[in-house]
Amino acid sequence: MSSYEINPIGQVRSCFEEKFCIPRQPGLLKHAKGWIELSDEFARPEMWRGLEDFSHIWLHFIFHAEGHEKWNPMVRPPKLGGKTKKGVFATRSPHRPNQLGLSVVKLEKIIWEPRVKLLISAVDILDKTPLIDVKPYVPFSDALPNSVGGFTENQTLTKVQVQWSEKAQTQREYFLLNCSYLFDFIEDIVSQDPRPAYMARQENHEKNYGVRVYGLEVKWHMKGHTATILEIENLSPESVQRIVDNFGDDC
Amino acid sequence: MSSYEINPIGQVRSCFEEKFCIPRQPGLLKHAKGWIELSDEFARPEMWRGLEDFSHIWLHFIFHAEGHEKWNPMVRPPKLGGKTKKGVFATRSPHRPNQLGLSVVKLEKIIWEPRVKLLISAVDILDKTPLIDVKPYVPFSDALPNSVGGFTENQTLTKVQVQWSEKAQTQREYFLLNCSYLFDFIEDIVSQDPRPAYMARQENHEKNYGVRVYGLEVKWHMKGHTATILEIENLSPESVQRIVDNFGDDC
Repeated sequence: MSSYEINPIGQVRSCFEEKFCIPRQPGLLKHAKGWIELSDEFARPEMWRGLEDFSHIWLHFIFHAEGHEKWNPMVRPPKLGGKTKKGVFATRSPHRPNQLGLSVVKLEKIIWEPRVKLLISAVDILDKTPLIDVKPYVPFSDALPNSVGGFTENQTLTKVQVQWSEKAQTQREYFLLNCSYLFDFIEDIVSQDPRPAYMARQENHEKNYGVRVYGLEVKWHMKGHTATILEIENLSPESVQRIVDNFGDDC
Repeated sequence: MSSYEINPIGQVRSCFEEKFCIPRQPGLLKHAKGWIELSDEFARPEMWRGLEDFSHIWLHFIFHAEGHEKWNPMVRPPKLGGKTKKGVFATRSPHRPNQLGLSVVKLEKIIWEPRVKLLISAVDILDKTPLIDVKPYVPFSDALPNSVGGFTENQTLTKVQVQWSEKAQTQREYFLLNCSYLFDFIEDIVSQDPRPAYMARQENHEKNYGVRVYGLEVKWHMKGHTATILEIENLSPESVQRIVDNFGDDC
């Protein structure tokens, strides 16, 4: 069988600047925002007319991060605690033949001028991911209420309790009116406990964590089932303005 | 941005041997059956373990039929009667950049030996379509009950009345116990009125039609809003046995 050459139509720009903390499925973090940065050929308004009437869109993309080109016949889904193996085609693992990714995201807004830009949310995609197609989510054919989800059923999302340190709380209060979704998002990613499953199972586990999101560096401390947000590095009037400019201002 | 080389993992084998009569979305014809024919490298059981617990699967494929390599910035969705234009990315048109297709189908059964074969139904894909990925349908993230479907909402499926001619009725009765889904399927495709929208609008339209499906040639006559199935060519004990062997025997 012959091979096919796929050319990106643009990039997915996302709040997630590293793989750590990206949720395992889209939709888990509603304040995880992003936008579609289209290359010149595809940034013409007529190609997108009518998409504004859809609430959700499918993004086809390439899992491009380092290491994603390697795959194995079986994988250990994180949802199963990393202990049980499933066939690679029974999972959505990014380590797969052809490195094809698929996510449904919420379409927040289309900016038409001077070039088309799609604002999206509930994203689970790494920043600067090559985008190869966009399709409308068609509820009639895509939303299957009676479908059965194998090992993804009955998932219990264990959340940890989140506290704000005095320093982080001061930062939050200072910038809350400029961009409230930023702080909801930070609390959400920390509360979803992004630690590897084997660490989360250790009762006395205690460690500092950090992640780059929205151009900021969020630092927190984990002790047992409680997370304390320590500080948000790079938080400034300029960095907050950059977030609002890029990701939208619906705070 | 660099391009990516995609290599098919197999082929979608389908009851639809030509584009005419393929429904505009999957799920419309529950007896439209098919199977996944995997190339040697991907026909190993361990790669598919666990998928049997899912009711539905996503197929990523290439729109490979002649003419699909051409695309325009705007298209006329058949659902809108061919009269209104929408941007290509606001549709699921097969004429699109990168020619990427996406369909959710019902996973009927996995045959594990001597090589993996997936039996599927509710298919809207042309026979021998290059398959480039399979993923489980995850209800938690994929089934969005509150999504809004733009111009695909409020679709009214106009059906025509179907009669069986004496000859076709004799054929049906003779083979009904061998493969009942075949005859339900034939009635379904004729009743969905696959004529181009402009023809279906003509009150006095009268014409013979034919389509190759399941290795057979179905002939019918359209007059106004009534279809008469005239005969099924190539129907024989051998051709029916071939259907059951390939597509499954859950009659």
